[in-house]
Amino acid sequence: MNANTRPVTADSLADSMHALGRAARAAAGVLARCSAAQRDQVLADAAAALRARRADILEANALDLEAADRNAIAPAMRDRLLLDEARVEAIAVALEQIRALPDPLGHVLADWTRPNGLRIQRVRVPLGVIGIIYESRPNVTADAGALCLKSGNAVILRGGSESWHSSRAIHEALVAALRANDLPEAAIQMVPTPDRAAVGHLLSGLGGTVDVIVPRGGKNLIARVQQDARVPVIGHLEGLCHVYVHAAAEPEMAREVVFNAKMRRTGICGAAETLLIDAACAPTLLPQIAARLQGGGCELRGDDQARALMPGMGVVSEEDWRTEYLDAVLSVRVVAGIDEALAHIREYGSGHTESIITADAAAAERFLGELDSAILLHNASTQFADGGEFGMGAEIGIATGRIHARGPVGVEQLTSFKYVVRGSGQTRP
Amino acid sequence: MNANTRPVTADSLADSMHALGRAARAAAGVLARCSAAQRDQVLADAAAALRARRADILEANALDLEAADRNAIAPAMRDRLLLDEARVEAIAVALEQIRALPDPLGHVLADWTRPNGLRIQRVRVPLGVIGIIYESRPNVTADAGALCLKSGNAVILRGGSESWHSSRAIHEALVAALRANDLPEAAIQMVPTPDRAAVGHLLSGLGGTVDVIVPRGGKNLIARVQQDARVPVIGHLEGLCHVYVHAAAEPEMAREVVFNAKMRRTGICGAAETLLIDAACAPTLLPQIAARLQGGGCELRGDDQARALMPGMGVVSEEDWRTEYLDAVLSVRVVAGIDEALAHIREYGSGHTESIITADAAAAERFLGELDSAILLHNASTQFADGGEFGMGAEIGIATGRIHARGPVGVEQLTSFKYVVRGSGQTRP
Repeated sequence: MNANTRPVTADSLADSMHALGRAARAAAGVLARCSAAQRDQVLADAAAALRARRADILEANALDLEAADRNAIAPAMRDRLLLDEARVEAIAVALEQIRALPDPLGHVLADWTRPNGLRIQRVRVPLGVIGIIYESRPNVTADAGALCLKSGNAVILRGGSESWHSSRAIHEALVAALRANDLPEAAIQMVPTPDRAAVGHLLSGLGGTVDVIVPRGGKNLIARVQQDARVPVIGHLEGLCHVYVHAAAEPEMAREVVFNAKMRRTGICGAAETLLIDAACAPTLLPQIAARLQGGGCELRGDDQARALMPGMGVVSEEDWRTEYLDAVLSVRVVAGIDEALAHIREYGSGHTESIITADAAAAERFLGELDSAILLHNASTQFADGGEFGMGAEIGIATGRIHARGPVGVEQLTSFKYVVRGSGQTRP
Repeated sequence: MNANTRPVTADSLADSMHALGRAARAAAGVLARCSAAQRDQVLADAAAALRARRADILEANALDLEAADRNAIAPAMRDRLLLDEARVEAIAVALEQIRALPDPLGHVLADWTRPNGLRIQRVRVPLGVIGIIYESRPNVTADAGALCLKSGNAVILRGGSESWHSSRAIHEALVAALRANDLPEAAIQMVPTPDRAAVGHLLSGLGGTVDVIVPRGGKNLIARVQQDARVPVIGHLEGLCHVYVHAAAEPEMAREVVFNAKMRRTGICGAAETLLIDAACAPTLLPQIAARLQGGGCELRGDDQARALMPGMGVVSEEDWRTEYLDAVLSVRVVAGIDEALAHIREYGSGHTESIITADAAAAERFLGELDSAILLHNASTQFADGGEFGMGAEIGIATGRIHARGPVGVEQLTSFKYVVRGSGQTRP
């Protein structure tokens, strides 16, 4: 399509998206210079505004639910979309929790003086402008907006079309709070159309005004973002997490940690998808672990050795080792020892989170030292892979990339730094 | 072009580039687990190998110089390409200096214990596989290879076609040192062809095997990399650096710092390109500063107010404010005060490095606090924007992006981290 035949709407979408970017960049400059108290007050006011507008938000949500029902969306997706009084209250409480986090900005991260007398400080500053692309949950509008504001960043939100009305109603509450505190409304913007072409513009970086994109959603969204983004992306691909029960594992601990890692919540990225168990302990321990899992409704798919011990188990395929079930299904492999376990995780893992259960300190140190996932645990459930559980407060996601942020992405991970250098007239020889 | 008509060579280039990526990924796993002593020994041996192979390297360089002369390349570019005994020695010394840096890996960056007893440590690890794309200087082959090795990363080097033979000869010395220490040769690989299509493959990330791209070169290279890369890029765009002489500047200091910032070396990214000077001090100070600069051979281009004070000065254009001269030329603007100076830098700066000269502490703090460049200086030359001057040792460049690395990129900036979590059977409630 050349310029002459391109519909006017495409041009005007491009224009309005670029205007969004410029406004965000200007707002980011203001946010970077405003006080933590100001940013915190906006968050407090936003929580109050959400409560005050609860009826409007539920009305908007009813429109989204009607459309969802017309389109016969899956029940799980409908549930993610649904708001009620308790859920609106939970969103407001989440804003207050983000407000209560320590200010991530301004900290001196390093401070040294050179032999020539120059004093150099590395000081934490906001990232700038963050683009967030997410799917159906309307609460992300508030969470993501609040996390960006807390860390002094302007944000451009692009929610899913399913949650369009709900997200806009929540967004209006945030903007009211910005306005009440004389901060630019463009600090938290929403893409003004559900048109999917808007995502492409956002991924282009809007003429250099967007510093980073954070996608929150399923595989297809992440894949598109990774493919099309012209700016850095902080995102997580899969959480194909492993629990390795070592020969020296304490049996009861192994049973409970494996059960928790798989079954506490099966749909989160920190849920275990594969159990590796040493051949030395499998004959006694695997039946106990399996009974606990099956008693909780978990389907097990094992390799030949596992099935020899537990004949009722399903057959695992090569593809299973690479599958993030996000469901009550667990792949099981009996391994000869730690070397085979490490090799399996290196081959099939997604670099998210892995746990070893053992009373053998040397085996634990090998596992923690030699593997290279974002999070490695000893004697603890993989379901601890979470910013809140790490003590970071709310998180915007778990990063599996290796650049900038890795593991839980909280307010501190949404910052950059600058160098401040104080001299007394030094010139470079 | 569809698959049937695509020439075989394009497929085989893709295949060989992807093989490079897989080998690099495997080598990165070995490097991440080898000791600092091993990596340091490789660097010591590589310095020795460079010295032992000096004649071969100079012979290879002669081939590059012959081709350069046939193509009548610019004298400055020929000088960048030229090696002699002293330059080969300097490359070897640089390797030894990188060897002597502290090991960046394994450090515990943070360590805390949660109320449930989980102990969480953030531990520094290598980034993984780094792709480096550079232009004519053959010494980058050794520097970049050594910086990546020191930080435990595998590297894929893509040098300029002008320095093809020189870079290969230097690369062979590095590989000999890897081999002598039983480390995989694929830890430091060179793209095996000067074919420019190879760059496109590297920028694609080679099937997920490349973690980050670092471009070192001119504007066109950086622009192509930013446009085409499907993996994160750590690069610097322009160094459009400003010196602001505030009304309360000490005159002699202002004169010497401005002179040094512009004239010490005009071709580096930390060289000043624009002088902003307060109207209050310009009548007395600008003539002194200008005389010093013009005495050193610097051309000045001023706005109306500057030219009213110094009628001999050239006329500055709107485009000058946006031009990184990298030459003995300086734009000069007389400003009403700090607000106008800050506004000018926000409008025209590239976010690299700016300096304020003043004896007024409050003005300095506003400048350092409110601007958002990677490096902000008070009473010191912008030419200190350099990893060595910051005490980081050798640098691979100055990052102007805001993600991951910012400012000088040394070995520490070529690392990532992982979380190591030790428990006693904790399950998540």
